[in-house]
Amino acid sequence: MTRVLIVGGVACGPKAASRIKRLLPDSEVTMIDRGGLISYGACGLPYYVEGTFPDIAMLVETPAGVARNAAFFEKVKRFKARTRTEALSIDRKHGTVRVKDLETGSEEGLPYDKLVLATGARPIRPPVPGLDMRNVWTMRHPDDAESMVDRIEAEGLKRAVLIGAGYIGVEMAEALRGRGLEVAVVEMFDQILPQFLDTEMALLAAGHMRKKGIELALGEQVLAIEGNGKAESVRTDKRSIPADFVVVGVGVRPNDELAREAGLACAPKGGIIINEFCQTNDPDIYAGGDCVVNRHADRTIQQPFFIPLGSTSNKHGRVIADHIAGKSTPFKGITSTGVCRAFNFTIGRTGLSEKQAKELYPDVVTSLWAGPDMPHYIPQSKPLIIKMSASKSSRKLLGVQVVGLGEASKRLDVAASALCFGATVDDIGNIDLGYAPPFSPPIDPIATAAHVLANKLDGIAKGLSPLKVKQKLQNGDDFILLDVRTPIEFKIMRFPYENVIHIPLGALREKAAELPKDKDIVAFCKVSMRGYEAQRILNAAGFERVWYLEGGLVAWPFEVIS
Amino acid sequence: MTRVLIVGGVACGPKAASRIKRLLPDSEVTMIDRGGLISYGACGLPYYVEGTFPDIAMLVETPAGVARNAAFFEKVKRFKARTRTEALSIDRKHGTVRVKDLETGSEEGLPYDKLVLATGARPIRPPVPGLDMRNVWTMRHPDDAESMVDRIEAEGLKRAVLIGAGYIGVEMAEALRGRGLEVAVVEMFDQILPQFLDTEMALLAAGHMRKKGIELALGEQVLAIEGNGKAESVRTDKRSIPADFVVVGVGVRPNDELAREAGLACAPKGGIIINEFCQTNDPDIYAGGDCVVNRHADRTIQQPFFIPLGSTSNKHGRVIADHIAGKSTPFKGITSTGVCRAFNFTIGRTGLSEKQAKELYPDVVTSLWAGPDMPHYIPQSKPLIIKMSASKSSRKLLGVQVVGLGEASKRLDVAASALCFGATVDDIGNIDLGYAPPFSPPIDPIATAAHVLANKLDGIAKGLSPLKVKQKLQNGDDFILLDVRTPIEFKIMRFPYENVIHIPLGALREKAAELPKDKDIVAFCKVSMRGYEAQRILNAAGFERVWYLEGGLVAWPFEVIS
Repeated sequence: MTRVLIVGGVACGPKAASRIKRLLPDSEVTMIDRGGLISYGACGLPYYVEGTFPDIAMLVETPAGVARNAAFFEKVKRFKARTRTEALSIDRKHGTVRVKDLETGSEEGLPYDKLVLATGARPIRPPVPGLDMRNVWTMRHPDDAESMVDRIEAEGLKRAVLIGAGYIGVEMAEALRGRGLEVAVVEMFDQILPQFLDTEMALLAAGHMRKKGIELALGEQVLAIEGNGKAESVRTDKRSIPADFVVVGVGVRPNDELAREAGLACAPKGGIIINEFCQTNDPDIYAGGDCVVNRHADRTIQQPFFIPLGSTSNKHGRVIADHIAGKSTPFKGITSTGVCRAFNFTIGRTGLSEKQAKELYPDVVTSLWAGPDMPHYIPQSKPLIIKMSASKSSRKLLGVQVVGLGEASKRLDVAASALCFGATVDDIGNIDLGYAPPFSPPIDPIATAAHVLANKLDGIAKGLSPLKVKQKLQNGDDFILLDVRTPIEFKIMRFPYENVIHIPLGALREKAAELPKDKDIVAFCKVSMRGYEAQRILNAAGFERVWYLEGGLVAWPFEVIS
Repeated sequence: MTRVLIVGGVACGPKAASRIKRLLPDSEVTMIDRGGLISYGACGLPYYVEGTFPDIAMLVETPAGVARNAAFFEKVKRFKARTRTEALSIDRKHGTVRVKDLETGSEEGLPYDKLVLATGARPIRPPVPGLDMRNVWTMRHPDDAESMVDRIEAEGLKRAVLIGAGYIGVEMAEALRGRGLEVAVVEMFDQILPQFLDTEMALLAAGHMRKKGIELALGEQVLAIEGNGKAESVRTDKRSIPADFVVVGVGVRPNDELAREAGLACAPKGGIIINEFCQTNDPDIYAGGDCVVNRHADRTIQQPFFIPLGSTSNKHGRVIADHIAGKSTPFKGITSTGVCRAFNFTIGRTGLSEKQAKELYPDVVTSLWAGPDMPHYIPQSKPLIIKMSASKSSRKLLGVQVVGLGEASKRLDVAASALCFGATVDDIGNIDLGYAPPFSPPIDPIATAAHVLANKLDGIAKGLSPLKVKQKLQNGDDFILLDVRTPIEFKIMRFPYENVIHIPLGALREKAAELPKDKDIVAFCKVSMRGYEAQRILNAAGFERVWYLEGGLVAWPFEVIS
């Protein structure tokens, strides 16, 4: 009979415990947690705040409405769950964990044959005065969301300032705006989702959030939360923003102290180090969930990744249970996939960011594509913008980011799958994706984006990113922005720049002679499919200094006239 | 200068022609088509009929509203397009194609260095009297849809009978019902989508169509379309169904005659045989699109597949252009992915059906899973049913079918990606899919479905498909249907069978002694996650004859009391 002790009861812990009991019915499994609630869906907090569902208790219930408490786990999952019980220290030599009952204060030693650390992470507290004032929250536990909503309602709070434009900041901005509040987000970096999105994608997402009424204060450092006992404003290095309440979401830190003090290997920046079976350097001690660092599925990448996600925690739980039960089901690593919603705009990324890719590979080529997610004749079709990067020599896919009003999460998951299998850019175009007009164009956006990048790798397509074209404009370069759209499209919306020449694509061959061969020409259209066509037409007519603006007007995150 | 002649101008043809000109600007490319329209989106026809978009011309326009006609291709894509021009024969020795101008009747020989056959497919005309009567349509060309809609409106046609419950039948049923018409679908096989879906999945989809008011006459053979010059009824082997008009959609046949007569290799049942570069057995003659048979991406499968799809046609066009331009971009084969929508119900499949899998592999294990596509606390979450099959020895994933009101097409595309990369069942669980509550539960449905199948392969989960349980009921087997849901759930909906015993999961451990050990027990709940848990609880209590009903009540396609 194996005795398994699990420290931490939110995601990885209960997953591991439940499966261990299914695989090893005779094992004795105990799960302890410092808190009063266990097995809660922390990712649901913004949706509770938004009012998507009425009762915070749903986050700790099964779909059938049964509370996932100690009695539930005892009766249904057949393991012992002890709440309000804190692990103080691990005695690896004797195989015991010293625990304290937080209700009674009594301590005892719990023996284990196998120990699972699923201690999670905690919000980072930035070094800012005023964090402990009334009406300042972090957002990690159901109590945080519930107390905030109660206070908003009881005191009629109206103005929210969110510190940090990471996932929590973006999701909470939507949630609070959805409740009709005024929302400002302050972010130290000069873009939203700085750890997550490349600049041009972040600009597009930020533009959408601003349209929905969110004030974004980017590149501003918070100096203090000010007020008289309760938060009244947030002072940054540029100004003071009035606030009825403040939500701090500047990231989380792994709870690795228990492991560290027991001499288990941790990453220098935090996070327990595990192998593919989620074992620590003590083979009898496993770790999983938000307290560990992960390996990347691309095994040429050695550096550990701290990316705490409920999806990964559940994977860890399963791998741990299997290994304890004598079954080898390796966890093959993450690809840094993340997705979030900002109103009706989806923001997704998988694999490496452009910056990460360039640190790890010497020959990174990126490409940006924009287009509709269904055939143009389906009125429900909506735009997507896809950025893809690859290594030029190996053609290996390195990273994909997908944003837009269209169905981005499907394309993200296809890209994540391709990355998990070590795909090349060319492999993407070969995937036999489901095609019917309500779901995609005949060539799916993710395949078209891959084709465009392949054309770029082959030197056929010569694209310039919006950032590079903006830079040319700011530098005052003498070049031509060649708009090849129809006259009607030109009338409705156009660039405000003086170097624009408008020649509809159908007239380009005959009018090509009017263009100079000694200047750079950047062709574009709505999404730059025609921009690319224009580049090829001009190349065929002997022009060499021709590029197209990647993603066209749809992916242009700067000013337009409309 | 390479002279390229392309026969056929709908999907593969224009794709190949456009890209050849981009890759080889100096080439001389001519595309001919028998019809008056080229480059049209035939897959959009049902959506025009439904009224999703107002003008059939949108199917031959670019997203910017420019008609894709000969002038467009000449000006923008720089190749010559000749409509109303039929290819009569190929002279491979001299490298010419005899063509006829259908307007003038004149004939000429067009020379080629490379020839591309993209001749498409045509609707099968079943051997049924009355096909040529007024108000009988096939649905392949924009003219078909336009003339039918005009007639429906002009003559106030109300009752449609569709012959064939394939893709066209299902999509047209939705479209016509969406216009407010009465719709009956007659299908010779005893299920809808017989070439496409496994029985239990087809039953679920058919149930949904019936709910939406479609009459399905399955297992009925059409003997004749009857009427006095125009269709008035469809006579089957069982009855006569009144009809104001009839749509025949019993499949298509590849237009391979031109190739066949030129001595090019074709499959016995039809379809030009091509290699991975879309070359026929004459290396100067390529073929692609609906006139060819495809290889499966799983190269252990030798048999050719005739699965005409716009997505594949476009892939062929690209591969052909690349190869003509001296670039090797092999087409790695299809995985038989297909998706269609029946009202708000999505129906998808990829890989092998259960029947196909069992013909090709000796050790096929299948599993059915049902569950919500988002966390239960998100009210927009909707059910999905996923069927997955694998080879027991190699654990290789063989086929996946996804149906339901939830976001099925995303999971289908992930499965299609996995199949393209030769994934095992265990690989699916490792994919780092995007997780946030508006998009999926922490463990995505496709991963959970894979876990369940893995548990089945490992002998931990013992599931019975709904068809097998129905068989046991019909056989009058003496077994127990163990409903482990909550009392409230039991009250709202339950099985109408006498062998049901209701014990909520939470009480099962203590009440297990009340159950017999000498009878088969089939446990279930709403989706059978608890059913599986019940199986493990009873196993742990010494019960050996325990299974769970796969997919629970959500995937049960037969009668329930509610």
